[in-house]
Order: sequence, then C-alpha cells, then structure tokens
Amino acid sequence: DSPFYDQENFQGKRLEFTSACQNIMECGVDNIRSLKVECGAWAGYEHSSFCGQQFVLERGEYPHWESWSGSNAYHIERMMSFRPICSANHKESKMVLFEKENFMGRQWEVNDDYPSLQAMGWGNNEIGSMQVQSGAWVCYQFPGYRGYQYIMECDRHGGEYKHYREWGSHAQSFQVQSLRRIQQ
Amino acid sequence: DSPFYDQENFQGKRLEFTSACQNIMECGVDNIRSLKVECGAWAGYEHSSFCGQQFVLERGEYPHWESWSGSNAYHIERMMSFRPICSANHKESKMVLFEKENFMGRQWEVNDDYPSLQAMGWGNNEIGSMQVQSGAWVCYQFPGYRGYQYIMECDRHGGEYKHYREWGSHAQSFQVQSLRRIQQ
Repeated sequence: DSPFYDQENFQGKRLEFTSACQNIMECGVDNIRSLKVECGAWAGYEHSSFCGQQFVLERGEYPHWESWSGSNAYHIERMMSFRPICSANHKESKMVLFEKENFMGRQWEVNDDYPSLQAMGWGNNEIGSMQVQSGAWVCYQFPGYRGYQYIMECDRHGGEYKHYREWGSHAQSFQVQSLRRIQQ
Repeated sequence: DSPFYDQENFQGKRLEFTSACQNIMECGVDNIRSLKVECGAWAGYEHSSFCGQQFVLERGEYPHWESWSGSNAYHIERMMSFRPICSANHKESKMVLFEKENFMGRQWEVNDDYPSLQAMGWGNNEIGSMQVQSGAWVCYQFPGYRGYQYIMECDRHGGEYKHYREWGSHAQSFQVQSLRRIQQ
C-alpha cells in the first residue's frame, strides 16, 4: 500500500492505493501533493486518464511536486492519475533502441542503466524508436536522468514505441540522452 | 574538450575547457547558460570556488539550466565554477554507507546504481555518513535521481564524508534516497 496526500509533506487527506486511479477527483481530492511509495513502482500522470507528463515513482518519500517531477520544461504541479508499473523487473529488463522511427537504422540492445547514452557509444542525442522486450524502462530527455520522463513497458503497446508520439502526450521530440530500468 | 556558452541553446560566447575553472567571470562571461560535455565527467557549481549547489555533468547536451539542475528546492540559474571529476570510474566504484554520522551504525557496501535505496533494503530515507573507496558517486535527496545532487569522490576529503555538512555547502539534511556511480 502506498499513501498519497492532498497536501505537501504528507499532510491533509490521506488515501491508500493498491491499484490504478484514473482520476483522483473521484476520490474526493483535487490534487496529490505528496506521497510515500511503500511497495512496487508506479507511474504518475499530470492529467486524468494517464495523460500528460509522466513521473516514475519508486519506493521512497516524495514530500512535494519537485521531488518527483524532475526538471521539466513546464511547471504545473498536478498529479491527477497513476497506476502500478506491473512489468518492472530490475534484473530481467531488455530493450532494443533504433536510430530511426519505425524500428529502422542502427540498433542497440540494452539491459543496463545508462546515465549518458553518448558516453556509452550511442551516436547522437536522439532515439528514433524502441522495442521493450522485457521489464519496464524510463527514458529521459537529458543526461543524468533529467528532464521529461518517458515510461516504456513490455506489456503496453506490445512493448513497441515506434515514434515519439507514442511515448506520451507530452513528448515533443526524439531527444533521449539517458535511460534506465525501473525496479519494483 | 567541452564547449560552454554564455547563452541558452549553445548560443553566445563559446568557451572551451579542458580543466577546472574557479570563476567563470575571469573568462569574461557572467554566467554559463548551456553546454556540451564531449569528454569526461564534470562537476558544476552554483557559486565560484566550487561552492553552492552541485551539478553532475556527464557526456551529452545541456541546452539550459533546467537540463542540469534537477528539481531543486531553489531556482537560481547560476553556474559559476566547474571542474573535471577525475576519479569517475563506472566499473570500479565502491562506497560504504553508514546509518549514522562519523561512520557509526549499520553499514552497507555498494558498487552499483540504486534508484531507490529503500527498495534495495536500506531502512530509512537518510544516510549518516559515507566512505568512498573507489570511483565517484552522486547521491540524491529523492528516489529516481531527483533533488539535490551531492558528488562524492575517492580522491577528495580522503573519500570520507562523515556528516552532511561535508557533502557541500547546500546540504541541509541527511536525506538521501538514491545514488549512482558517475561515469567518464
């Protein structure tokens, strides 16, 4: 169980979740402003119905929006829906990166964390498409796990993300400079 | 060589660095607003003389302050000094974590990346002290490599960080919820 709160610093109304919530307004709160993940990994979303900016939430304490948002292009302080990331599996994660969209161009199989894809041999600051073969991954716009977060899972979209438009409604470019496995 | 720019998006005056710079004003610019790391790993600092907030900079492109800052408690948009992290060594990094300050309490040796220390068995959201035996590490306030960054190196302070006051002038608490090795 993971308690979520409608005020910062684990104050205000407390809600316990064990499964997905498509719209936190239906639980009688207007926003989630702090949370503790006590088990599993979760995806939080800016808007209801799992839309907008994505936030990966692993076990630990998040006292305010800045603690889960990362450094993003727009500051909105909203988390309106979330769900467990069921396929997260730190040890058995595997993904193929493609230089171009639609699984074209140079490819590279990854099964580890990469704080800088360029340092590890990837040629540029973009990934055209991705095929998740096992586990769940989070990709980031900037090196060192910063900027927009894109959650990629083997059990969604058949694990296929063939264009940045499939990474999430907030994705605006192919830019990905770091990525890592998500752990339960 | 790594070019740094005094304007966002790699515009304005361009400076090339291969070694530490204690005060970028001495290079004739008032601030660093974008940069590309083409080799090695660097530590950037909010203030001159390697003081204030710390930013780990690995290979890749950083078009604006948000791309390297992470999600921090205060937004200042300044990077006034930086230096290479010479001891960074992705494969050979080792550190001992201690529950209490002054290398007291429960201890745990780490040689991997931990997006959530609690998920991997650490009992709480704090680390009392740290002893870096090899390589260089970056510790973060929140899970998933978010919040304040604290750079820890085997070849500085003798690798010993016995209280949060030694983590950097911006450190205000023992809170650390994720950490990882820095790579060249």
